[in-house]
Amino acid sequence: MSHTLLHPARVIALGETMLMLAPPGHELLEHSREFITYIGGSEANVAVGLERLGIHAGWIGKLPRNALGRKVVNGIRAYGVDTSGVVWSDTGRVGTFYVEWGADPRPIRTIYDRAYSAATTLTVDELDWTYIAQAEWLHLTGITPALSATCRQSTMDIVRQARALGIHVSFDLNYRSLLWTPDEARAAWVEIVPYVNLLIAAETDAALLLDASLPRETLATRLFNTYHPDAVVLTCGSNGSIAYNGVQTYCEPSHMFHIVNRLGAGDAFDAGLLYGLLTADLQTGLAYGNAMAALKMTIPQNLPLIEKTDVLRLLSGDTPYLMR
Amino acid sequence: MSHTLLHPARVIALGETMLMLAPPGHELLEHSREFITYIGGSEANVAVGLERLGIHAGWIGKLPRNALGRKVVNGIRAYGVDTSGVVWSDTGRVGTFYVEWGADPRPIRTIYDRAYSAATTLTVDELDWTYIAQAEWLHLTGITPALSATCRQSTMDIVRQARALGIHVSFDLNYRSLLWTPDEARAAWVEIVPYVNLLIAAETDAALLLDASLPRETLATRLFNTYHPDAVVLTCGSNGSIAYNGVQTYCEPSHMFHIVNRLGAGDAFDAGLLYGLLTADLQTGLAYGNAMAALKMTIPQNLPLIEKTDVLRLLSGDTPYLMR
Amino acid sequence: MSHTLLHPARVIALGETMLMLAPPGHELLEHSREFITYIGGSEANVAVGLERLGIHAGWIGKLPRNALGRKVVNGIRAYGVDTSGVVWSDTGRVGTFYVEWGADPRPIRTIYDRAYSAATTLTVDELDWTYIAQAEWLHLTGITPALSATCRQSTMDIVRQARALGIHVSFDLNYRSLLWTPDEARAAWVEIVPYVNLLIAAETDAALLLDASLPRETLATRLFNTYHPDAVVLTCGSNGSIAYNGVQTYCEPSHMFHIVNRLGAGDAFDAGLLYGLLTADLQTGLAYGNAMAALKMTIPQNLPLIEKTDVLRLLSGDTPYLMR
Amino acid sequence: MSHTLLHPARVIALGETMLMLAPPGHELLEHSREFITYIGGSEANVAVGLERLGIHAGWIGKLPRNALGRKVVNGIRAYGVDTSGVVWSDTGRVGTFYVEWGADPRPIRTIYDRAYSAATTLTVDELDWTYIAQAEWLHLTGITPALSATCRQSTMDIVRQARALGIHVSFDLNYRSLLWTPDEARAAWVEIVPYVNLLIAAETDAALLLDASLPRETLATRLFNTYHPDAVVLTCGSNGSIAYNGVQTYCEPSHMFHIVNRLGAGDAFDAGLLYGLLTADLQTGLAYGNAMAALKMTIPQNLPLIEKTDVLRLLSGDTPYLMR
Amino acid sequence: MSHTLLHPARVIALGETMLMLAPPGHELLEHSREFITYIGGSEANVAVGLERLGIHAGWIGKLPRNALGRKVVNGIRAYGVDTSGVVWSDTGRVGTFYVEWGADPRPIRTIYDRAYSAATTLTVDELDWTYIAQAEWLHLTGITPALSATCRQSTMDIVRQARALGIHVSFDLNYRSLLWTPDEARAAWVEIVPYVNLLIAAETDAALLLDASLPRETLATRLFNTYHPDAVVLTCGSNGSIAYNGVQTYCEPSHMFHIVNRLGAGDAFDAGLLYGLLTADLQTGLAYGNAMAALKMTIPQNLPLIEKTDVLRLLSGDTPYLMR
Amino acid sequence: MSHTLLHPARVIALGETMLMLAPPGHELLEHSREFITYIGGSEANVAVGLERLGIHAGWIGKLPRNALGRKVVNGIRAYGVDTSGVVWSDTGRVGTFYVEWGADPRPIRTIYDRAYSAATTLTVDELDWTYIAQAEWLHLTGITPALSATCRQSTMDIVRQARALGIHVSFDLNYRSLLWTPDEARAAWVEIVPYVNLLIAAETDAALLLDASLPRETLATRLFNTYHPDAVVLTCGSNGSIAYNGVQTYCEPSHMFHIVNRLGAGDAFDAGLLYGLLTADLQTGLAYGNAMAALKMTIPQNLPLIEKTDVLRLLSGDTPYLMR
Repeated sequence: MSHTLLHPARVIALGETMLMLAPPGHELLEHSREFITYIGGSEANVAVGLERLGIHAGWIGKLPRNALGRKVVNGIRAYGVDTSGVVWSDTGRVGTFYVEWGADPRPIRTIYDRAYSAATTLTVDELDWTYIAQAEWLHLTGITPALSATCRQSTMDIVRQARALGIHVSFDLNYRSLLWTPDEARAAWVEIVPYVNLLIAAETDAALLLDASLPRETLATRLFNTYHPDAVVLTCGSNGSIAYNGVQTYCEPSHMFHIVNRLGAGDAFDAGLLYGLLTADLQTGLAYGNAMAALKMTIPQNLPLIEKTDVLRLLSGDTPYLMR
Repeated sequence: MSHTLLHPARVIALGETMLMLAPPGHELLEHSREFITYIGGSEANVAVGLERLGIHAGWIGKLPRNALGRKVVNGIRAYGVDTSGVVWSDTGRVGTFYVEWGADPRPIRTIYDRAYSAATTLTVDELDWTYIAQAEWLHLTGITPALSATCRQSTMDIVRQARALGIHVSFDLNYRSLLWTPDEARAAWVEIVPYVNLLIAAETDAALLLDASLPRETLATRLFNTYHPDAVVLTCGSNGSIAYNGVQTYCEPSHMFHIVNRLGAGDAFDAGLLYGLLTADLQTGLAYGNAMAALKMTIPQNLPLIEKTDVLRLLSGDTPYLMR
Repeated sequence: MSHTLLHPARVIALGETMLMLAPPGHELLEHSREFITYIGGSEANVAVGLERLGIHAGWIGKLPRNALGRKVVNGIRAYGVDTSGVVWSDTGRVGTFYVEWGADPRPIRTIYDRAYSAATTLTVDELDWTYIAQAEWLHLTGITPALSATCRQSTMDIVRQARALGIHVSFDLNYRSLLWTPDEARAAWVEIVPYVNLLIAAETDAALLLDASLPRETLATRLFNTYHPDAVVLTCGSNGSIAYNGVQTYCEPSHMFHIVNRLGAGDAFDAGLLYGLLTADLQTGLAYGNAMAALKMTIPQNLPLIEKTDVLRLLSGDTPYLMR
Repeated sequence: MSHTLLHPARVIALGETMLMLAPPGHELLEHSREFITYIGGSEANVAVGLERLGIHAGWIGKLPRNALGRKVVNGIRAYGVDTSGVVWSDTGRVGTFYVEWGADPRPIRTIYDRAYSAATTLTVDELDWTYIAQAEWLHLTGITPALSATCRQSTMDIVRQARALGIHVSFDLNYRSLLWTPDEARAAWVEIVPYVNLLIAAETDAALLLDASLPRETLATRLFNTYHPDAVVLTCGSNGSIAYNGVQTYCEPSHMFHIVNRLGAGDAFDAGLLYGLLTADLQTGLAYGNAMAALKMTIPQNLPLIEKTDVLRLLSGDTPYLMR
Repeated sequence: MSHTLLHPARVIALGETMLMLAPPGHELLEHSREFITYIGGSEANVAVGLERLGIHAGWIGKLPRNALGRKVVNGIRAYGVDTSGVVWSDTGRVGTFYVEWGADPRPIRTIYDRAYSAATTLTVDELDWTYIAQAEWLHLTGITPALSATCRQSTMDIVRQARALGIHVSFDLNYRSLLWTPDEARAAWVEIVPYVNLLIAAETDAALLLDASLPRETLATRLFNTYHPDAVVLTCGSNGSIAYNGVQTYCEPSHMFHIVNRLGAGDAFDAGLLYGLLTADLQTGLAYGNAMAALKMTIPQNLPLIEKTDVLRLLSGDTPYLMR
Repeated sequence: MSHTLLHPARVIALGETMLMLAPPGHELLEHSREFITYIGGSEANVAVGLERLGIHAGWIGKLPRNALGRKVVNGIRAYGVDTSGVVWSDTGRVGTFYVEWGADPRPIRTIYDRAYSAATTLTVDELDWTYIAQAEWLHLTGITPALSATCRQSTMDIVRQARALGIHVSFDLNYRSLLWTPDEARAAWVEIVPYVNLLIAAETDAALLLDASLPRETLATRLFNTYHPDAVVLTCGSNGSIAYNGVQTYCEPSHMFHIVNRLGAGDAFDAGLLYGLLTADLQTGLAYGNAMAALKMTIPQNLPLIEKTDVLRLLSGDTPYLMR
């Protein structure tokens, strides 16, 4: 079959996608009559972001075989992501979480209800490695090892297996304080990170991994020198992002934006970063990452349903509308 | 304090209340953009039904101390039910379930996601027995012992303790096939039912308890003779309801209705039954029960938010509107 | 009955609660297809605010015995407020008002439709004084005497009766220009304020009572010296709040916030103030009041459905989210 | 100005139009988070119905000069009805009423909140008789004299003035039990009906006017012989409608329908009747009336927003869809 | 690449999918404030139906490269249908149509606004025949040749090309009176049908093609004998469906159902028919077709988002819920 | 008929009004489940704005005789605008466009779907010139000649005919880049503008007409000297507006506002300008125009549903609410 339309995914993102439930607007979880349903998962966000930019991506997770499991998969493949690698389970639940959007000084509030999900039981042997082997790149995050002891082991197994197959591995630390302590996270990460090609971290998570509060350039350099990835990328909120590849430090400033939904901005960055890397270079990756992150802030869904023309316009410096 | 306004609940209903999530109208769980939130719990339904008829009721359950736990309690005390006996927990989750309403021949579909809820960990010692002792009547259902081994033990303990305190106990078998097998249910019920004053059962559940398919009058008699409650009441869907108290068999026909939400109709019956019993007699109980069940079918919520005047009108035979 | 669960309300707030109808978002009353229903009443807001902070409160009003009257009561007792003192009427209507939220420079617009409500006919004799006598504190506002001649008389009667029973009385002037003129208000207030323990006023209302435009410290001092309450508290918008108790002037700055619904911010302040006073002192009262007022601005309802943890976080100076 | 586009209304309907508020679907007034807004007024319904059939109509009422008053007028003139005769008031309120749709055996429930509306103060002198004099026909209902003593007098004055100007008057008894007693209604009607050209009544209202339970043909005849209108028309629900003009009795059967909103069906009948009379004869009037009434049942609004092609199809006997 | 996950579609359905806009519930196009968006296309419905039953399907259409074009594609591939064969255009519009659901005797009303859509310009050369050649079966309908002269020619070209490649062709006549006259349809169909393996038609469309009103068995036989397909299948509404394959006539009765959305029931039948044929035989195809059609009636979307377990339950005769 | 109630429109605005469809809030066209329906047309906006200020206006367009055509007309005459001059067509479609509101840096996005609308076929002979001749003023925009070759000719014909009848003509250039190129626009405008009494243009459109980037005062002067209208008015966004009448240059600053819907702000300006001119002078026109434009920004609809009291308050400098 030489036909290119059924081409395999170039990048595969693996990790739990949950059902997220949130009241509309500024309403309260305690009071709202209805919850809007969202698809919530860092890795699926990255896969969708890559599709929007034109790189075919796949997403893998483990889900129960029911209407809610299908709801998650439908919500991802609707945007072109290949989901044929999903592991379907006859037991377990779909992980859920509740979000109340807040308004200053009332904080955004999250209630996790994700324990015992099917995703927490995923093992390396359940995956279709023939399928994964077709990909060039595998993207994981630090959320997966935090889900369960099983998942911590699986993450290690998956990373090793991928590298053994010659697949590039990117890993975004993505610390989740509701899932584990800093010490637990660090203990898991230090075992995984040595196998990673591209290490991505929010500045605070980088400091957590190194257990040291340092200037961001120092964090990047030290992570590179300690774990020897191909590159380290740090996101620094309104201070933009930086990267270090052992040769040079790259910087890109961030963009201004109106916040509609801040969830998934880091994942949109990752998608832009991978796109830039796969089609050009690290500098381009930071630029696309920052543009994707800014545009994501304006999208009501967690998925970065961004139009590539808007990214290009932002990269070109054309911002005709006043910030308001 | 002789003031009667802060009078204690006359009837207390004890059992899990969950957060129910359902798409609007005929929408699918798999497709719907939003879920309407409901309060779902058989015993809380009974408590609200009693309040609507003018008998002060309390509801007891165990809930985590967060916005979703408060959502459940708010949704019950809004209708006057006393919730001061609720057991608040710092751990555990709110049990949830998803409902898709269906349309013939597409069935109503339920996805339970209630495992590991705070309610499954309730023990007899966590209850405030001084509070319960103020009540005249305690209502329980066969759902509670089905929730967990802990709850099966707690149900026995609670029933014994209540009787020891001189409180009347009603028990509605309420078999739930998604929670346990018929054999498991029967094994638990036969230990509980001997302590029960008023045994209530759907006709099919009565047959399940007796492990015998019999005419409904025989079911009622045999249950009475086997377990010696004060009375046995059977609900028989469109065939109305019957009761047997060792002396006489009572019957009441059912009413016609337009179905808006069929969930909670049995609980509404229980509320009407208890109201009739507490204010008059068994015959009256059946009559109020059937009227409450029919009116409940027309209420969008699971809670029987019925106006007493509508019950009285129905009991008087005044049905000015054609069934359509 | 020594049981503490059925403890009486420590603070009782008395005053009309209405049905408020408002189009969603920025929609116009003239154009909107639907109106969102709210519960609107200054005193009920205070009662709910106290419950959120952990002080059991009661609310008293007069309502017709119909679905709309129940709607109002349900909306208050859902949050734990004791409503057993409500006066139910077989005649009269539920007061209503319509609100259009506006957007600068289009003002928020209110259409009052509250004349002839059941609440305008409340008399002192209709109240259950045995019930009220269980409370430590009674909170009233200057809206009540503005409702009708009957209510003006009732307010005087109630304040006198409460003081005679040893109950502390707080009174928030709450001038409403749609209900009466400044002169009418002043004439009524000067009769009531001498019986008040805690006088609360927006700075502009204090000036109206004294018929003098003065610096706020002077307003507070002069009110104290004229009417001899235990303390005078003035709210000054973005300038925070001050208090004077004959000994010392206390000040607390206000907080920044994103406005979701500005209605009820003053009532949330009152709840925080009473909480601080009842559990600590006047300075604490101002601090809690300002925090409650800021958080209220972010709540879509008029009721201050605030989480106490958010108040504590704000008081601790922990504001991790940038104002946006 | 000979231009026919600005032609005067051929029929004018005069009577109060209110703001109606109703929960969506089967929701309860007591529980629903939102109310859908409707325009509710028997006479305005007739005017809109006439416009749909192609006869230019005007509507006159009295409303306060605010957003809610404009909401009522906008909702009527949107369908082409001329509202330039409306009397605007600087005082008074818009009459309102609340409707809960019900579901068998739960009845449709109405809470009137229309006392003290601006409409209750309308007098004959406030009307622009030059404007009215341009019309050929004036339509009134028995609701207007029920609103207030002022309105009872005004109705008499208006009917007399219209007849003096040579305008035909139709009057639909439209008894409203929430507004007055049968005796009060009869006392008012017997003064008005002698001035009426076309008397329209539901069968039960005809019996009420005559204070006699009689066969419908007898009711029609006796009304004709007692009050000497040009014709008497009786609507008899599923039994269709009949008319008597002193010469002959006319009958038309009713149609089957699926009920979406039953409010305004009688008014739609009146519009069809007037259309038939004005363009053909009494028999045609009954036929159009019955078709309009059936189609109205399927319209969510109270206004009969019917397409004339659907009326013609129904009159032609072409009903391709099975009743379901 | 031997991996089966990226297997090609077994059946490809080709034809326009439009954006459908419809007011919620019984609301009117003329009055409704909002329109719900749907995906509307007979062939896409068939593809989705096949996926639900477990047969991988593809859909091909021509769409403009904008947000609305993506909306259509997202709405199809969300359910697993392969859309990689879609022809994207830089010009042209997305075809739209408006639907008002109606209520007896008010008919369902459709306003087509599909002229000049991108789909009307599709030519055989724009298709990726390497992609299509991977499929076993191609499904088309009589809507496509009705769209434009271009499409009439394309349909002929596509059918011939498919047969030349050894692909089976099914064709559902699907007469659309808003697109062409009976004579125009017949003229086009007689050129296409000779190339068809499976001819599917509603009974009335079969009569239109033969220009003869005949018993359904005769229609089937005569169509078979005239055009020599492998089989002819006729759908007869509540009379079920029949098939004739030159050897035998097959019949299956229809099921009862509650109508939520009748659009797409015929397409759901086609999906069930093809599933039965591809996995078993003609008799099975009729049975699955009738079950799919009945279940489709209960789905709010046009797409047959049916659960296969519901089909199996219906085929097994297990219908536990009373028709209501 | 001397009666003033049926007075003719003083100003008539002529031009296409479309059906606009937009997702709620920040939702995406590609993702949103529903579209809110709006009426969208520059000239209709002007007519409604004039009615709000108290000047009777008419609107003329050409629409198909179906539910969507009526939807457009209902949406305009609801606010008192006379629509009796509308040209109804038995063919053609209602022009539509889709709007996605955006959020910085994601732009507002418009998809035009207006080709082949009935409005594009309007000719001068289809208009009722007796009706138009009753008006004092005719308002047109540069959108009309951009719609089709037919419309370009019609615009010229209409402008000439109006002037021949002694009607004042205002023309707002309103360049639409999705409809034609700058060169095409300029070519059409230079033929029309010489017949215009009042030329209105955004600063950028003025530059486009003159094909020269110049200071705004110079643009105004040069336009005046080139085309000899009675006055030239330029709108300059946050820089306010200016006017030149050959004698003097007038300026008015703009107001601050919170943007709810920016569409139609220029049309609201035009309405304010015409009101000022017709009731006072050019300076007053600029002041009303700027106030109307600012208030329009806060209205969810495109129609300037502004209350005149808000305009007067803004003109008086009374802005009690802080900009937030």
